[in-house]
Amino acid sequence: MGTPARGSNDGHTLGELAERFGVDVRGDASTRIHGVATLARAAAGQLAFLANPRYRSDLERTGAEAVVLREADAEACPVPCLVARDPYATFARIAALFDPTPALQPGIHPSSVVAADATVDPGAEIGPFVSIGARSVVHAGAYVGPGCVIGEDCVVGPESRLVARVTLVTRVRLGARVLVHPGAVLGADGFGLAMEQGRWLKVPQLGGVTVGDDCEIGANTTIDRGAMDDTVLGEDVRLDNQIQIAHNVRIGAHTAMAGCSAVAGSATIGRYCLIGGGAGVLGHLELADRVTITSMSLVTHSIREPGEYSSGTPIQDNRSWRRNAARFKQLDTLARRVKAASKDTE
Amino acid sequence: MGTPARGSNDGHTLGELAERFGVDVRGDASTRIHGVATLARAAAGQLAFLANPRYRSDLERTGAEAVVLREADAEACPVPCLVARDPYATFARIAALFDPTPALQPGIHPSSVVAADATVDPGAEIGPFVSIGARSVVHAGAYVGPGCVIGEDCVVGPESRLVARVTLVTRVRLGARVLVHPGAVLGADGFGLAMEQGRWLKVPQLGGVTVGDDCEIGANTTIDRGAMDDTVLGEDVRLDNQIQIAHNVRIGAHTAMAGCSAVAGSATIGRYCLIGGGAGVLGHLELADRVTITSMSLVTHSIREPGEYSSGTPIQDNRSWRRNAARFKQLDTLARRVKAASKDTE
Amino acid sequence: MGTPARGSNDGHTLGELAERFGVDVRGDASTRIHGVATLARAAAGQLAFLANPRYRSDLERTGAEAVVLREADAEACPVPCLVARDPYATFARIAALFDPTPALQPGIHPSSVVAADATVDPGAEIGPFVSIGARSVVHAGAYVGPGCVIGEDCVVGPESRLVARVTLVTRVRLGARVLVHPGAVLGADGFGLAMEQGRWLKVPQLGGVTVGDDCEIGANTTIDRGAMDDTVLGEDVRLDNQIQIAHNVRIGAHTAMAGCSAVAGSATIGRYCLIGGGAGVLGHLELADRVTITSMSLVTHSIREPGEYSSGTPIQDNRSWRRNAARFKQLDTLARRVKAASKDTE
Repeated sequence: MGTPARGSNDGHTLGELAERFGVDVRGDASTRIHGVATLARAAAGQLAFLANPRYRSDLERTGAEAVVLREADAEACPVPCLVARDPYATFARIAALFDPTPALQPGIHPSSVVAADATVDPGAEIGPFVSIGARSVVHAGAYVGPGCVIGEDCVVGPESRLVARVTLVTRVRLGARVLVHPGAVLGADGFGLAMEQGRWLKVPQLGGVTVGDDCEIGANTTIDRGAMDDTVLGEDVRLDNQIQIAHNVRIGAHTAMAGCSAVAGSATIGRYCLIGGGAGVLGHLELADRVTITSMSLVTHSIREPGEYSSGTPIQDNRSWRRNAARFKQLDTLARRVKAASKDTE
Repeated sequence: MGTPARGSNDGHTLGELAERFGVDVRGDASTRIHGVATLARAAAGQLAFLANPRYRSDLERTGAEAVVLREADAEACPVPCLVARDPYATFARIAALFDPTPALQPGIHPSSVVAADATVDPGAEIGPFVSIGARSVVHAGAYVGPGCVIGEDCVVGPESRLVARVTLVTRVRLGARVLVHPGAVLGADGFGLAMEQGRWLKVPQLGGVTVGDDCEIGANTTIDRGAMDDTVLGEDVRLDNQIQIAHNVRIGAHTAMAGCSAVAGSATIGRYCLIGGGAGVLGHLELADRVTITSMSLVTHSIREPGEYSSGTPIQDNRSWRRNAARFKQLDTLARRVKAASKDTE
Repeated sequence: MGTPARGSNDGHTLGELAERFGVDVRGDASTRIHGVATLARAAAGQLAFLANPRYRSDLERTGAEAVVLREADAEACPVPCLVARDPYATFARIAALFDPTPALQPGIHPSSVVAADATVDPGAEIGPFVSIGARSVVHAGAYVGPGCVIGEDCVVGPESRLVARVTLVTRVRLGARVLVHPGAVLGADGFGLAMEQGRWLKVPQLGGVTVGDDCEIGANTTIDRGAMDDTVLGEDVRLDNQIQIAHNVRIGAHTAMAGCSAVAGSATIGRYCLIGGGAGVLGHLELADRVTITSMSLVTHSIREPGEYSSGTPIQDNRSWRRNAARFKQLDTLARRVKAASKDTE
C-alpha cells in the first residue's frame, strides 16, 4: 500500500536525494522516487529502508524502487540504493518530503474567540472553534488547530503546532517548534490536597508549565501546572500518548517517555532518560541523566547512576504463575528457612 | 431506581418480547414491562435478569415485574419469567428497547465547518462545533457529535457514531456501525523517533488507521496512525476507555481489551483475545488467537498458544509485602544456595 | 519565580492574615505579603511555609518575607512568621487569596448551543462552543468552560466548575462545588458486552453517574455511567488525572485516588481510602474504609481491614532484575525443594 506522494507528483531522483542528504548512490542515480514504504510492502516508485538486521531477509524480495541502507548491506541489495551511515535517520528526512500535512494558512478562523488583550501574530493560523484567553500570545508560524482552548497567560512559541482539541489551561509557556497532539491537557491544577478535620482542603496551584523548544507531547497526555514554581520540560523532550506528568516535575532535555508512563509530583528526571511504556516514577525522587526504565516498572527510590532499571515478574501461563505467585507470599519465610538450614549444615 | 422507559410509555408485554426474541414465557404473558433494572433493585413494571449464579439469592426477594433467566432457575422465580438459553444476551436485546438515546436527526448543524471537498451524506447528522477536513467522507446514518474534529482523508462509515469530542486526525477510515466515545483520538502521529547527534529526529508518520465494522472505541482511548502502513483493527474489536494502541499495531477481529491496557508499536494481536485492564504488550510481538492476558500483566515475548497468561505478584498487607519484596532482590542468590545445598546433601 | 499577586496588589499584612485564619504572628505584624512561594525560592513580599521536616534546612536561608510554620520551628525562623497547628492547611487558605482565577461572569456565550428544554440559571457562566442537551440543568454559580459538551438529562450543581472541554455524556448529575478538569469524560457507556455466537453483543448502558458535593475530577479522567443503576462518587472524593472508573463502581466519601489508577466494574471502594498512582482494583470487589493501596499495586480480592496494601517487586538494575525474575518462574519448584530438604534434614 504505502503512501501516495501527494503534492510531490514528480518525485525526486536518487541523485537529488543523495546530494540533498549527503549520502551515496549505488546504481542508477536517475531512479525516480514518488513515495516511501516498508521493505516488505514497497512497490514501484517507492523508497524503503533497512536499518534493523531483523528485516534483512526482506531485502532480497523487496518490490521497492530503491532502498536506504548501510554500506554493509549494499551488496545484497537487488535494486538501486542510497548508502548512509544512519539509514533510519536519512530515511526519516527523505520521508518528510512526502508528508502531506497541509501548509500553514495564516489567519484567524472567524468562529474563533480571542480575548481583547491576547496577541496572535499575523503569521499564525488559528483554526475553527478556538478560544484564546486573556494576555495569551501566539507567535508567528504557530498553528492552533480546531477546538483548542488556550486559557490565560499562555504562550505558544514560534512554529509550534497544537494539532486539535489541545488545552493549555493557564500559565503554560511553550517554546519554539513544540508539537502537541489532540486531547493533551497542559496546565491543569496539580493534585494538591491537605486533609483538615476529616475533609480535603484544596491547595491552590499557582505555578505554570514551561515547555522547552522542540518538545513533542502525545495525544491525551496531561502535564499539570506547578503548585508555586513551574512544571518544566527541557528542550527536545518527547512524550508519547496518555502520559501523566504531575505538578512541579522537571524533565531534562532529550528525555523520551513511552505511552502511559507517569511521573508523580516534584520528581526530577535527568537528561537523555528513556522511560518505558506504563512505567511510573514516585514523587520527590531524582533520576540521573541517561537512566532507562523498562516498561511497567515502578521507581520507588532515586537513581543516581546511569543504566537500565526494572521491576516486575515475567509473563507465564496463568497456572504456573498462580503457583509461583502464591510462593511469593511465603518468600521471606522461605529465605529464613534456607538461611537456617544452611547454618545447620555448615 | 432503574431506568424510565422514555419513548416507550406503553412498554411491551412478556408475550411480545418472547415472540420477538425467540424465548419462552412462564406465567402471565400479558405482564407489561416498562423498563429494566437489576434483580436487587427492580420495581413494579421492570424486567430484571439472572445469569450469574452469585446473584441467585436476589431472585426470591426481587421486586421485579418479571425476570429473564435459565430454565433451571425458572422454578425458583416468584414472578413471571422469560426462559432463555442465554439470559444475559436476551436481556441485552430487550434492554436496547428502553435505551433513550435520541434518534438521528440528519443534517449539518449551522455552526459546523465542512471543507469544500469533503462529502457528508444527507442521511448523516453532524452536530455543533464539528470540523471536517479536506477529502473526508461521512456516510449515511452516521452521527458526528458535538465538538468532533475530523481531519483530512478520513472516512466515517455508515451508521457509525462519534459520540462527542472525538478526533480523527488524518487518514482514519472507520467501517460501518463503529462506535467511538468522547475524547478518543484516532490517527495521531505514531511515536517515531531517531536519535541523531544527540537530538531526536522525528520520523514522519505517513500511514493511517483502519477500523473494521462493528468496533467500539472507549473514551479517551488513543490509536496512532501507522508510520507507513496502517494501524488496523479487525471487525468487532472492542476497546474500553484510556487504551493506547501504538502505530502499526494490528488487532484481530472480536478481540476485547479492558481499560488502560496498551499495545506498543508493530505488535500483532490475534482474534478473540481478551486483554485485561492495565495490561501491556511490548512492541513487535505476536499474540495467537484466543490469548487471554490478566489485568496489569506485561507481555514481553510472543505468545504462540491460546490460553491465559499472567505476571505480577499478589496483593498483601504492606508489611508482609515489604519483607517478601526485599527477598525478591535476593532470589537468584537464594536459588543458588538451595541448589548448592541440595548437592551437598545428595 | 513565585506568583504575582494579580488582583491583590496591596496584599495583606501578617496581622490581617493571622486574624482571618486564626493563627499567631511572631515578629512584625505589619509585614505585607503580596504572594506565595516555596521556602527555597521565595523573595521579598512573598510568604512561604514549612510543614515537612525535610525542608527545614531551607528555613535559615529563605528569602521569604514571612513563613507559616509550627510552633516548634518558630525559633529557628529568621523572618516574621505565622504559627499554625497545621501550616500546610493554613498556607493553602492564604494562597487561595492570591489565586488569579478569573471571577465568574454570568451569562451564556453567544456561540454556545443550548437545547430549548435545558435550564441554565442566570447566575451561571457558559463559555464559548458549549453544547447543552435536552432536559439538562446548570445551577447558579456554575461555570461551564469553553468546548464543554453536556448531553441529555445532566445536572451541573451550584458553584460547580467544568474548566474546559469536559464531556458529560448523559444522565450525569454533579453536586455542588464539583470541579472537573479538561478532557474528563463522565457518563460514557460502560464496557458491557455479551459474547453471542462468536460476536460481541452490546449491553445497553441505561444508568447514569452521580457525583457528590465537593468532588474534584482530574484531566482526562473517565467515569462510565452504570449499566442500570448509577456509578456513584460520594462527597469530597478527589480523583487525579487519567483515572478510569468503570460502570457501577461506588466510591466512598473523602477517598482520594492518584493519577492513572483504575477501578473495574461494580467494585465498591470505602470512605477515606487512598489509592496510589497506577494502582488497579478488579471488578466486583469491596474495599473497606481507610484502605491504602500503594502505587501500581493490583487488588485482586476484597479487602476487609483498614491498612496499607501492596503488590509488585522492587526496582533493581536490569541485570540483577533479570536474574531474579528468571528465578521467579522457578519459585514453586524452589519452595518444594526447600520443603523436601528440610524434611530430609529433620
